[in-house]
Amino acid sequence: MKALVYNGPRDVSIENVPDAKIERPTDALVKIVVTNICGSDLHMYEGRTGMESGRVLGHENFGQVVEIGSAVDRVKVGDWVCLPFNIACGFCENCERGLTGFCLTTNPGSAGAAYGFDQMGPYAGGQAEYLRVPYADFNALVLPPDAEEKQLDYVMLSDIFPTGWHATELAGVRPGESVAIYGAGPVGLMAAYSAMIKGAAKVMVIDRHPDRLKLAQSIGAIPIDDSADDCVEQILNQTGGVGADRGCECVGYQCHDHHGHEVSNLTMNRLVDSVRPTGGLGVVGVFVPKDPKGPDELAKKGQMAFDFGKFWFKGQAMRTGQANVKAYNRQLANLIHAGRAKPSFVVSQTLALDEAPEAYKHFDDRDHGWTKVTLKPAA
Amino acid sequence: MKALVYNGPRDVSIENVPDAKIERPTDALVKIVVTNICGSDLHMYEGRTGMESGRVLGHENFGQVVEIGSAVDRVKVGDWVCLPFNIACGFCENCERGLTGFCLTTNPGSAGAAYGFDQMGPYAGGQAEYLRVPYADFNALVLPPDAEEKQLDYVMLSDIFPTGWHATELAGVRPGESVAIYGAGPVGLMAAYSAMIKGAAKVMVIDRHPDRLKLAQSIGAIPIDDSADDCVEQILNQTGGVGADRGCECVGYQCHDHHGHEVSNLTMNRLVDSVRPTGGLGVVGVFVPKDPKGPDELAKKGQMAFDFGKFWFKGQAMRTGQANVKAYNRQLANLIHAGRAKPSFVVSQTLALDEAPEAYKHFDDRDHGWTKVTLKPAA
Amino acid sequence: MKALVYNGPRDVSIENVPDAKIERPTDALVKIVVTNICGSDLHMYEGRTGMESGRVLGHENFGQVVEIGSAVDRVKVGDWVCLPFNIACGFCENCERGLTGFCLTTNPGSAGAAYGFDQMGPYAGGQAEYLRVPYADFNALVLPPDAEEKQLDYVMLSDIFPTGWHATELAGVRPGESVAIYGAGPVGLMAAYSAMIKGAAKVMVIDRHPDRLKLAQSIGAIPIDDSADDCVEQILNQTGGVGADRGCECVGYQCHDHHGHEVSNLTMNRLVDSVRPTGGLGVVGVFVPKDPKGPDELAKKGQMAFDFGKFWFKGQAMRTGQANVKAYNRQLANLIHAGRAKPSFVVSQTLALDEAPEAYKHFDDRDHGWTKVTLKPAA
Amino acid sequence: MKALVYNGPRDVSIENVPDAKIERPTDALVKIVVTNICGSDLHMYEGRTGMESGRVLGHENFGQVVEIGSAVDRVKVGDWVCLPFNIACGFCENCERGLTGFCLTTNPGSAGAAYGFDQMGPYAGGQAEYLRVPYADFNALVLPPDAEEKQLDYVMLSDIFPTGWHATELAGVRPGESVAIYGAGPVGLMAAYSAMIKGAAKVMVIDRHPDRLKLAQSIGAIPIDDSADDCVEQILNQTGGVGADRGCECVGYQCHDHHGHEVSNLTMNRLVDSVRPTGGLGVVGVFVPKDPKGPDELAKKGQMAFDFGKFWFKGQAMRTGQANVKAYNRQLANLIHAGRAKPSFVVSQTLALDEAPEAYKHFDDRDHGWTKVTLKPAA
Repeated sequence: MKALVYNGPRDVSIENVPDAKIERPTDALVKIVVTNICGSDLHMYEGRTGMESGRVLGHENFGQVVEIGSAVDRVKVGDWVCLPFNIACGFCENCERGLTGFCLTTNPGSAGAAYGFDQMGPYAGGQAEYLRVPYADFNALVLPPDAEEKQLDYVMLSDIFPTGWHATELAGVRPGESVAIYGAGPVGLMAAYSAMIKGAAKVMVIDRHPDRLKLAQSIGAIPIDDSADDCVEQILNQTGGVGADRGCECVGYQCHDHHGHEVSNLTMNRLVDSVRPTGGLGVVGVFVPKDPKGPDELAKKGQMAFDFGKFWFKGQAMRTGQANVKAYNRQLANLIHAGRAKPSFVVSQTLALDEAPEAYKHFDDRDHGWTKVTLKPAA
Repeated sequence: MKALVYNGPRDVSIENVPDAKIERPTDALVKIVVTNICGSDLHMYEGRTGMESGRVLGHENFGQVVEIGSAVDRVKVGDWVCLPFNIACGFCENCERGLTGFCLTTNPGSAGAAYGFDQMGPYAGGQAEYLRVPYADFNALVLPPDAEEKQLDYVMLSDIFPTGWHATELAGVRPGESVAIYGAGPVGLMAAYSAMIKGAAKVMVIDRHPDRLKLAQSIGAIPIDDSADDCVEQILNQTGGVGADRGCECVGYQCHDHHGHEVSNLTMNRLVDSVRPTGGLGVVGVFVPKDPKGPDELAKKGQMAFDFGKFWFKGQAMRTGQANVKAYNRQLANLIHAGRAKPSFVVSQTLALDEAPEAYKHFDDRDHGWTKVTLKPAA
Repeated sequence: MKALVYNGPRDVSIENVPDAKIERPTDALVKIVVTNICGSDLHMYEGRTGMESGRVLGHENFGQVVEIGSAVDRVKVGDWVCLPFNIACGFCENCERGLTGFCLTTNPGSAGAAYGFDQMGPYAGGQAEYLRVPYADFNALVLPPDAEEKQLDYVMLSDIFPTGWHATELAGVRPGESVAIYGAGPVGLMAAYSAMIKGAAKVMVIDRHPDRLKLAQSIGAIPIDDSADDCVEQILNQTGGVGADRGCECVGYQCHDHHGHEVSNLTMNRLVDSVRPTGGLGVVGVFVPKDPKGPDELAKKGQMAFDFGKFWFKGQAMRTGQANVKAYNRQLANLIHAGRAKPSFVVSQTLALDEAPEAYKHFDDRDHGWTKVTLKPAA
Repeated sequence: MKALVYNGPRDVSIENVPDAKIERPTDALVKIVVTNICGSDLHMYEGRTGMESGRVLGHENFGQVVEIGSAVDRVKVGDWVCLPFNIACGFCENCERGLTGFCLTTNPGSAGAAYGFDQMGPYAGGQAEYLRVPYADFNALVLPPDAEEKQLDYVMLSDIFPTGWHATELAGVRPGESVAIYGAGPVGLMAAYSAMIKGAAKVMVIDRHPDRLKLAQSIGAIPIDDSADDCVEQILNQTGGVGADRGCECVGYQCHDHHGHEVSNLTMNRLVDSVRPTGGLGVVGVFVPKDPKGPDELAKKGQMAFDFGKFWFKGQAMRTGQANVKAYNRQLANLIHAGRAKPSFVVSQTLALDEAPEAYKHFDDRDHGWTKVTLKPAA
C-alpha cells in the first residue's frame, strides 16, 4: 500500500510499504478515508525527536472497517470509525480509570501509545491507505449515519478537538469564566472553540499569525496579537487587572518570542502572569524530558526556568499531559451529529496523499493560510 | 410606601405599608426598580400554603442601594444590585459550604429564608418601592455598568435563571448530552436555556402550552407537546430508545395531566421513564411536606406513589431542592455582561406595580401569552 | 462438575452439571476456591423473583485461572483472581465511563449482567467447581502474592465490600461526617466499615439482630437498636437534633418493621427523616420494578408511598443502583494487601460446597450467628 | 499586654504593646489560651522576608471570646474558638467560593491575609495575651464543650492540621492509594496523618531527622531516610517501580540536600520522579516570588530549574497554595471531638509566652526533639 514515510529531518516521501493487516484477534483493519497532518508531526519532521527513519506517520485517522479479528464483538465490517490517536488496551489500571493516553499495556515500559509516533510504541501511522487498529472494540469510535458526509468534522475527534477540549478540562474552564489561550494553531483554536461551547464568558487567544487570529475571532474569541511584547498586559486589561480565570498552553516546548528566538519558558511564565490567583492552567502543548537540540542548557535537560514562586504564591493549579481522547470523543461526536459543533472550520487544505510531502513543508514553514491539512488517501 | 399585599386566596392588592428600613448594622436598603412575579408566588396566591394575610410578596428583586448599615463594607450607596431570593447569613455551616438556600441563621428552626414567602422567615417581599436586604455584603450581587440598561436580564439572576441552571446542575448535565425538561414555564425555559449554554447536544422540553413551546423552540430546544399521552415515547424516539441522559423537573407538586386533573406523581414517574439507566434527575419544582388541599390521600401527607423500583433498577440519581442562587449568579452575570446570555427573552409583560393584581390573575390562569411578568414600582 | 442448583422456592441442591468451559476467545476459566452466599441470593431462594429452576447460583467468586482464550493478553494461567459480580464488556458506552454494573453488551436489552442471577443474563454462577469468566482481561482482578493467604478478605471484593463502599459513595460520605446506615447485614456492615476507613466521624448502624449490632460495634460504629420504634429519634439525638450528614440504605425492598411485618416504605422514609437538609442518601439495597408477591398494591407495581415532599423540602440527594465493582475493587485490594482492611470479620461460617443447601436455610432464617457464609468447593 | 515582637533577623523578644481591641462592629476580641510557633514563622525569624520590625508574630491561635462588636450575631462572649490563620471577609468573590486563603478584601491589592505575617496585611499576631479577630462571625470556629480539655488538639485547626490536609487534597489523595510526603516537619506529619485518616494504603514520609521520622512511623507511615541520596529509589521500590500515586511537598523554598546545601529545585524535582504518570502533586511548602537572599540566580528571581518536560510527559497535575483553613476545620474538629483524630501528637514542648524567644532559637536550629512548640500566654 502507499504511505507517507519519514526518511529523516525535513524529508518525507510517499512509498510503497507492506499492507497493514490483522495481527491479533482483537484487531480491526481500517481503510483510511481522511487523515490529518498534526502540529506534533512537525516535531518529528524537524528532527527534534528520536524518530527512526522508515516509519509511517499519521495519528489523526478516519475511515471504514474492512476486516475484523475473531475476538472483535462490537465493531463490524462497514462501520465508519474515527480512531483516537492513543492506542489503549481498555483493561490496565490506567485505562480502567479512563486514562487511555497512559495505557500500560500497549507501550510496555512507558505509559501511552500512539500511531506513527516517536517513543509511543511500534505502531504504523495512518497517512496511508490502510491502518491496523489494535483492541478495536475498545479504541474505535463507531460513528452515526452522517459519518461520511461530515467526515472533515468527525476526523477531528481523533486528536485536535479532544486535545483542545482537554486543555479546557485541565484548566478547569466553567461556564461564565474567562480563559486565556496561548497559541492559535489547530489545537489552540480547538481549545478556544471548546471553551465557547462550554459557555465561557470571554475567550482570549494569543498568537501572531493574522490568519489564525482571524479564525479565532470567527468563532467568537478575542484575538490578542503578541507581535509586540505586551500580551500579558492586554489580557490584564480585558480582565479588570486581575487575570483570566483559566489559561491554556497550546504551543509546546518550541515556543518563540516575537523576534523568532526560541525561548523555552516564555509561554509558561506568561501564562502564570496572565491567570488570576487560584486560577487553573491546562498544558497540552508537548514538552519533552530531554531535548538535545534545545536552545539553552536547561532546555537540553528538559528543564525550564519556571516562575515557581509566583505560581505558588498565586495558588494556581496546573494539569498537564496528552489527551485521553476516549474521555471526550463520544460527547463531541454527539455535538457534531446534532449540528452544534463544526470543527472542520480549521481545515485550510484537503489534499491527496501524494501531496503530503509538499504539505508538510508549507505547514512547517507556517506559511500563511496553511492552518490544517487533511489528506485523502483514496482520492 | 406602596406594596403588593396578600389578603387571602386569589386576593392581592396594592396597599400603603410602613417603609422598609435599615434594622441591623449589616442591612442595606434597596430601591426596587424591577421585581417579577414568580410561579411559586402562585402557590401562595392560590391559597395552597399557610401564608398569612397582610404580607408583602415578591422575591425576584433588582434595584439600587439607597442606604447601608454601619457594618456594611462592600456594598455602596448607588450600587445597582440584584438580590438572590434566598436570604443567607454567610457564616453558618451551610452557607460556608455554598448552601445558601439552606441558611441555618436567617430562619431559625428551619433551613433557608426568602423574601415574601410562606415558611421562609418573616421577611417582607420586594413587590414594593423599597426592600430591606439583610447581610447585604453577603447577599447583594453588585452589577457592572450595564446594569440599568440590561435590567430585564439581570433581574432574572434573583431566581429563575439560577433556578433553571440549578436544575441542570442537579441533573448533572454535561456538554454533548441529551436532556428532557418537564415544564416550559419560566423555570423550565431557563433550564433549557442553561442546558444550551452548557453545550448539551439535544434539549427536549415537555409542555402543552403552544406559546411556551414556541419559546423553547426559539432557543434551540426541541418542543415535545404532551397534549396527548405519549410524551415519554416521543423522548425515547429522540434518544434511540434509551432515554435522555438527564432529566429536569420544573413543574412541582401541582402537576396536571392533559385532561386538567391534578395527578401528583405524573411528572416524576414520567421523568424516571424518560431518562436512561444511570442518568440523573434534577428536581427544582416545589414539593411540600404536607398539602392538606392536595388531590389524594398520599398527596395530603406529602407522599407520592413513586416508581421507586424502576428508579433503583435503572441506577438513577436524583438531586433536589431550591437553588443556592449565589452559587451561580456571578457566573451568569458574566454571561449577560459579555452578551452571551439574554434571559429576558421570557418576559411577556412589563407593567407598573399598580397593575400587579391583574397580572397575578392572568398568570395564574396561564392565559395565552402571559409567560413572565415584570413589575416596575417606580414607573 | 458439582454446583449449587436452584430448583424452586426454598429448594436448592448440589448437582452434577456440565463443566464450565471457554466459549469465546476473550474468556477465562477459573477454578473456584471460595464463593459466598449473598443476601441477594435470598430474593431468588425465597421465590420472590422470576429465577428459572435449574440454574447455578453464586456471584461472589474467588479462585485460580486454569485456562484462557486465545485473545486474553493480561490474565495468565495460575493467576489468583477475584471476579466482580458484574459481567462487563469494557468497551460499551457505560463501561467506558466506569459504569460496569450497567454494561450494555453482556445482557442485551437490559443494562447490567451478573453470574447466576435473575434478569442479569444467562451466565452460570460460581457456587460450583469452575466458572467461565467472559471478557476476562477486563473483568478479572489479578491479586498480589498474599491472595491465597487472605482469600477470605479478597473474596469480599467480588460484591459486598465494593457494594458497601458504593453505598457510602452514593451517599457522598466525606471525612469528618456522620452517617446513618440502615441494615447491619453483610452489606450494611461493609458500608459501616467503608465509612470508618474513609474517616467518617460518627457511623451509626440501625438493625435489630444483636449479633449483627455487635459486629457493627466491633469496628467502631454506634449500634442503634430498632426493636422499638424510635430509631430516628436516636439518630437525631446523636446528631444534635439535625440528622446525620449522610444515610445509606442496605436493606432493600423486603424491609420489615419490628413486629415482623413487611412495610415497603419503612426504611426509605426513615432515612429521609434521619438525614439533615442537603444531606445525601445512598441506596444499594435491591428494589424491583415489579413485585407480584409484594405486601401491598403499590409494592406489587414496584411503587412506594415515598415522603417526596419532605425529601424535596430538605433538598436531599439520592443516588441508587448496584455497585460498579471495578470502580472500587483495586483500591480496596490495596487496603487489604497493606493490612489496612480486613473485611473477613463478617464471615461467620466457612463450609464445604455440599453444605450449601443447609447454609441457605440458616441464612434465610436470619438464624443467630449466621451473618455471612463462605463456601469452599475444593474442600 | 505582653506579646512576642519581631525586632530583626533572629531577634525576637517579649514586650509590652498596646492592648488589642474591637475596631469594627464585625470584630471579636479573643483572649489567647494557646498559640503555636509555626515553621513559616521561621522564614520571618531568619530575615528571609521583608517583615517590618516591631510587629507581633503568631498565626496559630486558640482562646476564648471576651468581647464582640455590635454586628456580631453568631459568636458569643465566652465561646471557645480556634482562629484560622487566614483572615477572610466571607463575601468577596474568592471567599464565596471557599477560597478564604485568597480573600480580596482583607489585604487590598493582594489576595489573602493572615495574623502577624509579612505581606499578609497589617494584622497583629496572636503570640500575645489578646487578639483582635476581624469578621468574627465568619472567621471564628466555635468549638464544642470539650474545647478546653482538648486545647492542644483544637489549636492545630488554626493552621498545620488543615494545611497538612490541604496538601493531600491538592495532591488528590484517595482511599487505597500510595502517597510520598516530602518533609516530616509539623506540616508534613499532619499531611501524613491526614492521608492515614482518609484511608491511604501506603504513606511514605521523607526526611532526615530521626525524631521526626519516628513520629511519622508512630502514626503508621513508612519513614524514608534521605540522609543518603537515594530517597527516590526507596519510593520506587515501595511502589513496584512505578512511583507513588500522589506526592506532597511540605518543605518549601528553603530546602537543603543532605550535605546541608540549599538547593532550590531539589524537593520538587524529586517529587516529579517519585510520583507515577498521571499522579497528583500537592504543594503547601511556602515558595516566594522573589528571594533576594536565595542561593542562586534563579532562586533570587523566584524561579526554579524545574523538570517541566518530565512533569508534562508523565501527565502529572500540580496544585499549590496556602490552605483555605475554613474548607476543612469544621470536619477536622468533628474528628477531634469524636476521638478519631489527635493531632497534638506532634507537640514537643508546651511553654509560657515568656519562653518564646528561647523556643524560636531551638526550633530554628532544628534541635533534636523540638518538633512543635505551643505557648500559653496565660500561664
